Amino acid sequence: MKRATPALVPRVNGTFPLAPGGAAEFTAGPARALSYAQSRQQNSLAELIQFARFPSISADLGHAQDVVACAQWLAARLRSAGLHRVGVVPTRGHPVVTGEWRNAPGRPTVLVYGHYDVQPPGPTAQWETPPFTPLLRGGNLHGRGTADDKGPILAHVTAIESYLRATGRLPVNVVCVFEGEEEIGGPHLAAFLAGFAPARAADVAVVSDTPMRRAGVPALMTGLRGVLTARLRVRRPGRDLHAGHFGGAVPNPVEAACAIVAGLHDRAGRVTIPGFYDRVLPVTMGERARARRVAPTDAEILRAAGGPAGWGERGFSLYERATMRPALVVNGIGGGGVGHAARAVIPAEAVVELNLRLVPRQRPQEVAGLLRAWLARTIAQEVPPGVRVTATFGAQVPPVLIPAGHPAMAAAARALKSTFGATPVLMRSGGSISAVASLNELGIPLVLMGYSLPNDRIHAANERFGLANFQAGIAASILFYAEMARLDGDH
Amino acid sequence: MKRATPALVPRVNGTFPLAPGGAAEFTAGPARALSYAQSRQQNSLAELIQFARFPSISADLGHAQDVVACAQWLAARLRSAGLHRVGVVPTRGHPVVTGEWRNAPGRPTVLVYGHYDVQPPGPTAQWETPPFTPLLRGGNLHGRGTADDKGPILAHVTAIESYLRATGRLPVNVVCVFEGEEEIGGPHLAAFLAGFAPARAADVAVVSDTPMRRAGVPALMTGLRGVLTARLRVRRPGRDLHAGHFGGAVPNPVEAACAIVAGLHDRAGRVTIPGFYDRVLPVTMGERARARRVAPTDAEILRAAGGPAGWGERGFSLYERATMRPALVVNGIGGGGVGHAARAVIPAEAVVELNLRLVPRQRPQEVAGLLRAWLARTIAQEVPPGVRVTATFGAQVPPVLIPAGHPAMAAAARALKSTFGATPVLMRSGGSISAVASLNELGIPLVLMGYSLPNDRIHAANERFGLANFQAGIAASILFYAEMARLDGDH
Repeated sequence: MKRATPALVPRVNGTFPLAPGGAAEFTAGPARALSYAQSRQQNSLAELIQFARFPSISADLGHAQDVVACAQWLAARLRSAGLHRVGVVPTRGHPVVTGEWRNAPGRPTVLVYGHYDVQPPGPTAQWETPPFTPLLRGGNLHGRGTADDKGPILAHVTAIESYLRATGRLPVNVVCVFEGEEEIGGPHLAAFLAGFAPARAADVAVVSDTPMRRAGVPALMTGLRGVLTARLRVRRPGRDLHAGHFGGAVPNPVEAACAIVAGLHDRAGRVTIPGFYDRVLPVTMGERARARRVAPTDAEILRAAGGPAGWGERGFSLYERATMRPALVVNGIGGGGVGHAARAVIPAEAVVELNLRLVPRQRPQEVAGLLRAWLARTIAQEVPPGVRVTATFGAQVPPVLIPAGHPAMAAAARALKSTFGATPVLMRSGGSISAVASLNELGIPLVLMGYSLPNDRIHAANERFGLANFQAGIAASILFYAEMARLDGDH
Repeated sequence: MKRATPALVPRVNGTFPLAPGGAAEFTAGPARALSYAQSRQQNSLAELIQFARFPSISADLGHAQDVVACAQWLAARLRSAGLHRVGVVPTRGHPVVTGEWRNAPGRPTVLVYGHYDVQPPGPTAQWETPPFTPLLRGGNLHGRGTADDKGPILAHVTAIESYLRATGRLPVNVVCVFEGEEEIGGPHLAAFLAGFAPARAADVAVVSDTPMRRAGVPALMTGLRGVLTARLRVRRPGRDLHAGHFGGAVPNPVEAACAIVAGLHDRAGRVTIPGFYDRVLPVTMGERARARRVAPTDAEILRAAGGPAGWGERGFSLYERATMRPALVVNGIGGGGVGHAARAVIPAEAVVELNLRLVPRQRPQEVAGLLRAWLARTIAQEVPPGVRVTATFGAQVPPVLIPAGHPAMAAAARALKSTFGATPVLMRSGGSISAVASLNELGIPLVLMGYSLPNDRIHAANERFGLANFQAGIAASILFYAEMARLDGDH
């Protein structure tokens, strides 16, 4: 197995001593852990089914108790895995679940980050199976949260347990931080990390919350987009009005909302907000060339999207548009009712949910200001008198670039190659993980190695997670801890 | 009391013989009926509360059983009122409730039309009281359907019952037709009427489904707008997509829907669909002058709307815009989710509910064709490749003009003046009642005398109906039947 050339920068003790067990530990240990994990496949599946039953929807306050119950289940699972100092730590929002195993003095400390909250299921009619009744179909476990992110974090917990049960110890120190607010932009994680010294002292953070390149081909992410969300409320004073009695004589907030949305992009697919692109780090020729070699082609992305045509900024591939270029997405709009809820009214209110994906050098706060200024001008031009628009900003997550040359990346690459038999692809993700931005700001090196597939339908109906990937994720996690322990052998 | 000068055109027997009881019947009969009604005020209120408890939401198939249960309750009420041949008549949709009393040979036949179905309640949070738990507050009964149209039709039923109980007979023949699909454009009423001879033989149809001018001032409607509804489905193939992983690279149906909606009006408040105004009957100087005298002022309409500013076609008062000019209203839009249901996705679908209000000489079918042509051009310009738009048309109700000179109108005017002490105002309504269009096409003279108030919040949250108006409606109905009987005395 190829070794990493630069050594892991020791952050705790200056240098890492030789591992107590010597070189044998690096091969026998993981082998025994792998074998233990393999013998318990049925159990790990049963546990994932239990985990995915909790409707831990962080965005819906009506599910706050379910989020807590899910956190408690996860904490119990961490305890049974053999972790110490397991806690369900309250925040000003949903709790963080933590656990530690720090009995490998002098060895690196790996922070395992993940999230146990999930996206709302969306319209039930679109689900082929009930979102919170996980069901096995064709080798995949179907259910909200199975891929994002309950399956991947359970892969890590199972890896830890397997190591501990098979060898009595872990090859590295581990600190688990499992968040309950990732899907709402992680508003309280930075504050939590500020008060949680074991996490801040980590030598590397591993995050399994990004997709693989495709089945059988792992990926290591070198960047994430940031995110800024905004909710626009467009209101006319008073109530919904009878469409016959008032139609044609009073302003319609739905039409005003549509006029605002219609102005957000020009016909070339560019966001019209002045200054929006000013700070965007240009895509380098080298990165474009690498993307052409390894990243998904337009055809692949369209196949994953299930649509015949791409869209967006001219002059960039779909991969570039979705990862290296910023984007503005309207997540949702609602006003009056549609379908069976349609009523013959002029609605009093419309709501628009905006989701801006930001790329390196863009700053969420600054983009919020640009959007606000654009809105003020647009409202003056497009919104009739008597209609008020208010904007409230939600998640504000900075984009992240991850240096590919860090030795922990090489350790991860070896673990992934051993697991999947294919060298991982270096890619950028168009997604956003606020915790990654927070950990990045703390200066903790990051490894983003995910186990889900691009067509696992995360955030959408019929989310699923492949059992083969679940087991591979357990193996890759085991091998990653082992590889991290080997790094100090290079000194 | 001033008599109508032209006699009611006899449609059944050529001429109406003198009433059997002579002139005394015209004063003693209604007086006894009024006194009977007054003695049963508590009962009639209790009955309205029962009636309004049924969630008879015709637009929601999930409530089909409630619609039937409501129809059965109403039929039982008609029987207990003393009507004959009471029936719950199936249609291809929701049933029609009928009842007759035709023991006044030679006398006019009055068709009493109303509807027992209701609009969906809309967001529960906007209701101060539960929509289907009618509650008395400050002299009003609050609940969905209390004013539109359960209260007014129960006023007629109670008037009929009072007459029958107090005098043993009615002064005219009566045929009740109570529809269960008015709020969805009455798709099956014309077919029902074609097979229901007693209705087709009516000399006049009285409809109490329009508002009064204001409290204490009744109104007789001289026109209704027509309606054309259309549902636009804007779809991208496939499912909702992760906003991070695909944002900026695939088209967004919500944005496409907004672009379509944003193009429906120009900045002068006019509908942009070419040809939309071509057939519109111009508002005459005479009608404008009368409207200035008696119709609601802009200030009144804004007060009723609860908003500071009007909107719409320049050069017309708000009353003219809302009654004599056509309008296009977006009733609702939905795509992705908002609020607690918001998800970080590019939604696969958006739905827009359009509601066009048409004025005399506009033809729903023709306007549907104009909208379809406009849509085809707009889609070509504004909707990105890979997004499909389909339009399905729903209600198609022609507009109606009602001649004010008909003697039944004069009879109604006298009944209303006796009840409210104020001469009714002749007005146009911006609303639409498909049954009125159907009855108009059958050549049956129409009287639109309503008992609800402009601020009874029909179609909106917190709908209500004043108890004083309920009792006045019973009285006005009694006096209208009496006045109709008097008409033949002019021969």
